Amino acid sequence: MEKSDVKVKVLGSWSSPFVLRARIALNIKSVNYEFLQERLWEGKSELLLKSNPVHKKIPVLIHGEQPICESLIIVQYIDEAWSSGPSILPSDPYERATARFWAAYLDEKWFPSMRSVGIAQGDDAKKAAIAQVEEGLALLEEAFAKCSKGKAFFGGDQIGFLDISFGSFLGWLRVTEKMSETKLLSEAKTPALLSWAHKFCSHPAVKDVMPDTEKLAEFSKTILARFRGAAPPKS
Amino acid sequence: MEKSDVKVKVLGSWSSPFVLRARIALNIKSVNYEFLQERLWEGKSELLLKSNPVHKKIPVLIHGEQPICESLIIVQYIDEAWSSGPSILPSDPYERATARFWAAYLDEKWFPSMRSVGIAQGDDAKKAAIAQVEEGLALLEEAFAKCSKGKAFFGGDQIGFLDISFGSFLGWLRVTEKMSETKLLSEAKTPALLSWAHKFCSHPAVKDVMPDTEKLAEFSKTILARFRGAAPPKS
Repeated sequence: MEKSDVKVKVLGSWSSPFVLRARIALNIKSVNYEFLQERLWEGKSELLLKSNPVHKKIPVLIHGEQPICESLIIVQYIDEAWSSGPSILPSDPYERATARFWAAYLDEKWFPSMRSVGIAQGDDAKKAAIAQVEEGLALLEEAFAKCSKGKAFFGGDQIGFLDISFGSFLGWLRVTEKMSETKLLSEAKTPALLSWAHKFCSHPAVKDVMPDTEKLAEFSKTILARFRGAAPPKS
Repeated sequence: MEKSDVKVKVLGSWSSPFVLRARIALNIKSVNYEFLQERLWEGKSELLLKSNPVHKKIPVLIHGEQPICESLIIVQYIDEAWSSGPSILPSDPYERATARFWAAYLDEKWFPSMRSVGIAQGDDAKKAAIAQVEEGLALLEEAFAKCSKGKAFFGGDQIGFLDISFGSFLGWLRVTEKMSETKLLSEAKTPALLSWAHKFCSHPAVKDVMPDTEKLAEFSKTILARFRGAAPPKS
C-alpha cells in the first residue's frame, strides 16, 4: 500500500482551508511533499487543468502519477495510503460515519454561512449570517462533547478527520471574527471549541502550515474588493 | 464489528434515489431491515426528526439505537459494519478515492443538472439542461472504462460504491428520458453505460427495490405540479 519512494505533490494556495487539510494530513503521516502554489489571479496552471479536468480546482494531491481531488477525499486517501503515522479516521464504523457527517455539514452548510458574513450587505444581512454561523458552532460544540469523550480533540488524543475538516477553517474564522468585530468562539458560548482551537493550532502537524490571521485578513480584503468590483450595480 | 442481533431500520421513501442506495447496500450484505416509509406530504415523522435533527432528511439508517444520515455515508457505514457480503468500496486507496470522487460529482453536479431538465421553463432552457446532463454522461462513460477494466460494473465483477451511487439515479434518468423525449443513455453515445444500466437493474440486490419507471413518472408529475404551484408568478 505504501509507496514511500514515489514523489508527492500538493497543488494549492497558502490561503485555502481545503488545501490546508491535505497538508495537515500529510504532516500527520510524516510524508514529505512538494507544495506547488497556484497563482489564482494569473490563470490556472497546466498541471492543475490536467490533474483536475472536471472541477479545475485546488487542492490536488499528486502521488506518483496519480492525481487525487477534493479535500475530504484526499484526507481519506492519505489515511489509507500511508500507515506512517496515527490513523486519521476513527476505527469504529459509527464513529467514522459521525466524523464524515460533521465534515460534510461543515462544507455544505457551515462554511458557506461563514463566507456569507463577509459578503453580506447591510447590518441585518450580516447579523442574520452571524446568527447562522453561531447556530452551527453550537451544534459543533455538542458534537465535540460526544466525539472527544473528554479528550483534547474530536479524534480523542490525536488529531482526526473531523479535527482536520473543521480546524482548517480556523484561520478564516478568526478573520471573520476580526472583520465582523464579533467573538464567534467564546468562553461563554463555546468553551470546548475555544480550548480545542488553541490546541489544534499549536499541534506540530498544524502550526507551521496554519496561515497567519493578519496576512489572511489582508488577503480577504483583496478578495472582497474583487468580488464587489465584479458584482452588478444594485438597482 | 458485526452486530447481527440488533435491529436495522431504514427511514425513507420508495421514490428517493438516496434511500435506494442504503437499501441496495443492505441487500448486498444480506442484512434484513425494516423499511419505514416517510409520508412526505403529511409531515415528517417524530422518529425522522429525532434521528436526523440537523438536516431532517431521508434516508436515515438506524442500527440498534444509532442513527446514520446522508446516503453516501450510510453506504460506507454499511460496508464497514457488515462483512456478510462482498466489499462495496474497492480495496485499493486510489480506486477508493476515484469512486468517492465520481460519487460526489454525481450528487453535486450531475443529479442537480438532471433535476433541472424537469423544471426548466421553455425549449432553450430545457435543451441547455439536457446538454449538461449529456456532458456528465460522457465523463461517466470514460470513468466506466477506467474503473470497470472491461468487467460488468464500475466495481469490477461486483456492484461497488460507484455502481450504487450512480445506479440509484437510473429510475429518475428513465423518467427524464420519457418526459423530455430524449434518449440520454444510447448505443451511439454511451454504449458502456447503456449495457451497465441493464446489468445493474437486473442484479439481485437491485431488481426488487428499483422503482418502476411508470410509477415514478406519475409521481414526478405530482411533484412538478406542486413545485410549479408553489413558484412565484413570472413578472
